[in-house]
Amino acid sequence: MEHISGGVCAPIGFKAGGIHCGIRKNRVKRDIALIISEVPASASAVYTTNLVKGAPIYVTQRNIADGVAQAAVCNSGNANTCNADGEDVAWQMCQLTAEATGLKAEDVIVASTGVIGQPLSIEPIANGMAKLVASVHADGSQEAAEAIMTTDTRLKEVAVSFVAGGKTCKLGGIAKGSGMIHPNLATMLVFLTCDAAIAPHMLKKALADNVQDTFNMTSVDGDTSTNDMVCIMSNGLAGNAMIDAEGEDYAAFCAALNEVTTTLCRAIAKDGEGATRLLTCYVTGGKTVKDAKLAAKSVVCSSLFKAAIFGADANWGRVLCALGYSVADIDVKAVDVTFRSIKGSINVCSMGASVPFSEEKAKEILMEDEIDVLITLRDGEASATAWGCDLTYDYVKINGDYRT
Amino acid sequence: MEHISGGVCAPIGFKAGGIHCGIRKNRVKRDIALIISEVPASASAVYTTNLVKGAPIYVTQRNIADGVAQAAVCNSGNANTCNADGEDVAWQMCQLTAEATGLKAEDVIVASTGVIGQPLSIEPIANGMAKLVASVHADGSQEAAEAIMTTDTRLKEVAVSFVAGGKTCKLGGIAKGSGMIHPNLATMLVFLTCDAAIAPHMLKKALADNVQDTFNMTSVDGDTSTNDMVCIMSNGLAGNAMIDAEGEDYAAFCAALNEVTTTLCRAIAKDGEGATRLLTCYVTGGKTVKDAKLAAKSVVCSSLFKAAIFGADANWGRVLCALGYSVADIDVKAVDVTFRSIKGSINVCSMGASVPFSEEKAKEILMEDEIDVLITLRDGEASATAWGCDLTYDYVKINGDYRT
Repeated sequence: MEHISGGVCAPIGFKAGGIHCGIRKNRVKRDIALIISEVPASASAVYTTNLVKGAPIYVTQRNIADGVAQAAVCNSGNANTCNADGEDVAWQMCQLTAEATGLKAEDVIVASTGVIGQPLSIEPIANGMAKLVASVHADGSQEAAEAIMTTDTRLKEVAVSFVAGGKTCKLGGIAKGSGMIHPNLATMLVFLTCDAAIAPHMLKKALADNVQDTFNMTSVDGDTSTNDMVCIMSNGLAGNAMIDAEGEDYAAFCAALNEVTTTLCRAIAKDGEGATRLLTCYVTGGKTVKDAKLAAKSVVCSSLFKAAIFGADANWGRVLCALGYSVADIDVKAVDVTFRSIKGSINVCSMGASVPFSEEKAKEILMEDEIDVLITLRDGEASATAWGCDLTYDYVKINGDYRT
Repeated sequence: MEHISGGVCAPIGFKAGGIHCGIRKNRVKRDIALIISEVPASASAVYTTNLVKGAPIYVTQRNIADGVAQAAVCNSGNANTCNADGEDVAWQMCQLTAEATGLKAEDVIVASTGVIGQPLSIEPIANGMAKLVASVHADGSQEAAEAIMTTDTRLKEVAVSFVAGGKTCKLGGIAKGSGMIHPNLATMLVFLTCDAAIAPHMLKKALADNVQDTFNMTSVDGDTSTNDMVCIMSNGLAGNAMIDAEGEDYAAFCAALNEVTTTLCRAIAKDGEGATRLLTCYVTGGKTVKDAKLAAKSVVCSSLFKAAIFGADANWGRVLCALGYSVADIDVKAVDVTFRSIKGSINVCSMGASVPFSEEKAKEILMEDEIDVLITLRDGEASATAWGCDLTYDYVKINGDYRT
């Protein structure tokens, strides 16, 4: 497997684009994206578990119930959530896309992201659709990635190549996500494309399994969004033999999927609203995977610890505190904690108690922009990784007045 | 029932005091408190559910296992948590208190609050004990309340009088708590005193029931502390007939207890680290009390909503979002939301969708320092209240470098 350029356009037969159609009135930023596959693709998606769901989610669920899709359309600037006419508007987005591209409306994945509870006018989308379709090209992944950004400061795009059935396949993705990031069984907005031939039921299984270890282990602020979705289209144009059961090819596909989603998780956490540091918590020695996951996620979710990391303060007591309330089954008197960055690593807690360490060295390590928290439990063999970020003034600033 | 002055010294037979003994080296602030009852008192306490528990909690649990206590000693500046010799030090605090007062060490409630994972030296406590005992007087509640403060900016003290068995009884309390506030079955440090005669088993029941609706419905930052404790001593000097079963007197006692604890909850939330606003969420129409509580607490815990309140932004979509991921059983299409303060009230969401409202009026309401969020569900008859605060730059500042 190797990283390649091209994002969602890296796989054979995928094109993408993005334009400003006027949903965002206060600034001229691309606000609608379109991804198209040359041929119908196996498709799957996972969605937020929030009871309040964005209207596009219901429409997408219906559209890909048959395991097939050929395009994805997504606007930013308005979440189309808590709107009485929301599903109508989302379905109109599919119809407009279908009319302008010649595809079927039922084969369109639709998504929205932005403010909740403000009606989404179909007018700018209808007016801009021809321009949007014209913007789609074989190198348009970045334009699509830009168009789905809200408070994101960095474009999130990745692609890898892998081999299945002797054929080189490619898998790419784009993502948006910066605040309201605390996925639960699904997450954020992530569009993945692939040119491998894979049966819809295997694609569904691969995606559902993968998100448990990737997006569901990522948190920016503890708020599970109403519009989270990860979707994938795999169009088979790589020419590999159809992956329709577990085996070597399926494993290669899953490894590629994991590389792409893990890269996007890190990118999302690092670009957390206001964040200055990416926080990765590795837990080993857990009693069960569930315990290791609960422990890792509790640490990256602690407001107190996140604020300490912003201050480059080696306040390991807050790590212990977060482990203690994580509801993981842990022997808290057998916990070791080490902080690590490119500047080195430093053990700050051993067997649940303090060890002498250089505050100066710890500060030097924690001033870097990617910090690892290594937690060793002595309860078993299970491990888990979680991603998060620090809590900063800018998070408060961004969210103190997001709507205006 | 009426509010009276005197805090923990309001009930007959209680004295209190507080001094600076030198646990805090960087500033001369009272750092150790003592409360004494003239006679042995019925005593009960509830503690944090965090698996990492402060050493004093284990000692206090042993000391009041018999339902009796006569004094409470508490230092600030060091939590005495995650220290190998922690329980020894906590027990020495009881012994030193006993020697200096002539009481039994087994009748002393001990607590610590401050930084986790730094050894607590017994030396300043031993050196200061005579002075601490000398500081205790019949009007010393405020000095004790000051001595337990850490990042608190306001002293938290309350007392009420009530009638039980024809006798006027008094119940008072002091509290500390500003950060790491997200109690779970117990909370923060709260010392309650009462002069009613009440049997230990009824006192235990009253306290355990009460915290479910008060401290456990309060959150500042989602972090459940390692040292949370609420304790009560009731010495019987009011001369009422012993309350040893449910009935009118027990109800009067519980009402007084609820008034005192609710007042302290509001004080703690309002004084949340960096907070500028007290947030009270009232949920009515819940399917069950559990659902109503989950809903109310989810709203006051949402980082996004807390930041919006800091910005006086009527971002009700974040209220719906928090309800949606609360795991409460809610019909999200039947939710109404109203914001209220002394400047009036404004309905911002009806049946789960937006309603037209004046942003100007909403801003005026949300600029006040006590904000109510009224949530009407249409699922049943249950209701719940939760307390929280806004998320501000100062929360990040305070916690970015707490240790130094």
